[in-house]
Amino acid sequence: MRTLRLDLAERSYPIHIGSGLLDDGALYRPYIRGRRVVVVSDSQVAGLYGARVCAALADYRPLLLQFPPGEGSKTLETYATLADGLIEGRFDRRVALVALGGGVVGDMTGFLAATYQRGVDFIQIPTTLLAQVDSSVGGKTGVNRPGGKNMLGAFHQPRCVLADTGTLSSLPRRELAAGLAEVIKYGLIADAGFLAWIERELGALFEGDEVALQHAVYRSCEIKAAIVAADERESGQRALLNLGHTFGHAVEAATGYGAWLHGEAVGLGMLMASDLSHRLGRLPGEAVARIAALLERAELPTRLPADIPTDTLLGYMAGDKKVLDGQLRLVALDGIGQGVIVSGVEAEVLAAVIDAARAPMAA
Amino acid sequence: MRTLRLDLAERSYPIHIGSGLLDDGALYRPYIRGRRVVVVSDSQVAGLYGARVCAALADYRPLLLQFPPGEGSKTLETYATLADGLIEGRFDRRVALVALGGGVVGDMTGFLAATYQRGVDFIQIPTTLLAQVDSSVGGKTGVNRPGGKNMLGAFHQPRCVLADTGTLSSLPRRELAAGLAEVIKYGLIADAGFLAWIERELGALFEGDEVALQHAVYRSCEIKAAIVAADERESGQRALLNLGHTFGHAVEAATGYGAWLHGEAVGLGMLMASDLSHRLGRLPGEAVARIAALLERAELPTRLPADIPTDTLLGYMAGDKKVLDGQLRLVALDGIGQGVIVSGVEAEVLAAVIDAARAPMAA
Repeated sequence: MRTLRLDLAERSYPIHIGSGLLDDGALYRPYIRGRRVVVVSDSQVAGLYGARVCAALADYRPLLLQFPPGEGSKTLETYATLADGLIEGRFDRRVALVALGGGVVGDMTGFLAATYQRGVDFIQIPTTLLAQVDSSVGGKTGVNRPGGKNMLGAFHQPRCVLADTGTLSSLPRRELAAGLAEVIKYGLIADAGFLAWIERELGALFEGDEVALQHAVYRSCEIKAAIVAADERESGQRALLNLGHTFGHAVEAATGYGAWLHGEAVGLGMLMASDLSHRLGRLPGEAVARIAALLERAELPTRLPADIPTDTLLGYMAGDKKVLDGQLRLVALDGIGQGVIVSGVEAEVLAAVIDAARAPMAA
Repeated sequence: MRTLRLDLAERSYPIHIGSGLLDDGALYRPYIRGRRVVVVSDSQVAGLYGARVCAALADYRPLLLQFPPGEGSKTLETYATLADGLIEGRFDRRVALVALGGGVVGDMTGFLAATYQRGVDFIQIPTTLLAQVDSSVGGKTGVNRPGGKNMLGAFHQPRCVLADTGTLSSLPRRELAAGLAEVIKYGLIADAGFLAWIERELGALFEGDEVALQHAVYRSCEIKAAIVAADERESGQRALLNLGHTFGHAVEAATGYGAWLHGEAVGLGMLMASDLSHRLGRLPGEAVARIAALLERAELPTRLPADIPTDTLLGYMAGDKKVLDGQLRLVALDGIGQGVIVSGVEAEVLAAVIDAARAPMAA
């Protein structure tokens, strides 16, 4: 087991990375203040790991609450149902919630923890690669509304993250690929050497090699933790973590939430951001081609569906949270490993990027 | 105009108290970071003051969102509708929300501000005495669930509070009385001299005397601000502000939310807490009689309805947020002006307090 620390003064917390962690009651214990815990999961993950987590937490008489898997559950309705479960069980402010699952479970449980009785503790057990490298670290929580993703939420840091790489063995290949999109992102925005390592180890990662997976998770979390520690509330540099996300969120919205996995949309979004960077004179064409090649090897989609009109996508981008006073901010690249925030990009340039994304990209 | 400051490091904010403040655009301007503001109100208060506030904020092209008045609107459904109004209007993270109304509007708008796109600024314009002396100060926000009041919420401080005592002239006498319950509370927990002042000036307060009202609001906010500054998250002394609230919330729940005004329930709750203090040997019987007499002069109910069974009320009290790990914490009095937190009160004593509250209280 390796342990990272996210440094946020009195809200600092450890991120443990290793295999079989979810069975180890001693890892949870320091972060539970009351007598009871509630494990929140989706029915799929609960079926795989719910009993093991509840066994590790037996001293705390865990209640297991679950909801149907998928982005479609990330709603205020699910949130209300879970909250009512806590109220009916008479859980007080000292309850600790344990989020067992992927990004949807983590975001939902985190928002519930942020707001139940105005805030209770929670522990993250991310069970997808995407959640291990991204959503479980940094304290962003939230739910979707019909008008946009994550429109309602809070910043609420977990007390501890248990990234059990053993859970990745049950992950469908498509979900592993979606997680790799975010791993690639860290290389692109912050570490060219890590990107080269991903290019070399991609086969091992897909084969579920534990050593490779633990390194990928560790280095990804390390980069994210450093950025979040410097800018918890995303007033500046934290926005770099959104590489590909403004395009990606628009793709998710335009295709209907759930059709594309978040990581898949971010993968295409990163390629579009790379193309944008090239059009802005920031990134050589060979780098765009290299990124496209890696995304294809990582089995991620690199083309926009032909039936999504440019204006539709632009409309969704303008509604994105990263818009500030009508000014769209985007993350671009000044080279591999060098993310940069740009604003004032003209709509025609964005339209050209979108149009180009429908055609076969360079590879 | 007099100004208090709630001291919470980088989240410190001013509380302006005076007549006609809501027309003064200069008071809002320092606290608006973006180009747009959204005024949230209920339809009753919007009809009285919405146009004036929007006129003062004309530079920011205000959008006015409103919902039906009353505690019954303090739901996740109203919250979702308001959030969708912000999403449809494409308001970004720089929007400032202005809460124009009583406690329901403030709690709802505050929760929306705490969670819209993970947190935006808000300004409080409390228009009831209760909101001016209590809910607009301290950053508690939230909505109710069928199983309990304020079960979902957040701590989110406003950027500024404008307590315009001119708005109190439109307040029904019953609501003024409900607000006086909280004013009396500050005297009881922290300042015997203030309690004596209230006893003397009660007539002037009911007549809407501006000088008396401004002093009542100022001293109440001053006491609350000092307590909140010392304990923002209610880990200790802030709980003193809950004098009468555990009993009161149970009364509100047992009578069906909305039948009693919050301040009315708190008034009876304070009398019950006083009686409890007496039974615990902490408060002389004459003090209980003095409190009962003041509450009656303040036109507040001092008896529990005969049709509420003791067990029902005890059940609601056990579900209160102030329960910690099954241990009920209550606020009692060690004398007028001397609140104290007690725990481990036996159920039989609570039952005796409840039974006694059905009979005519000493006066």
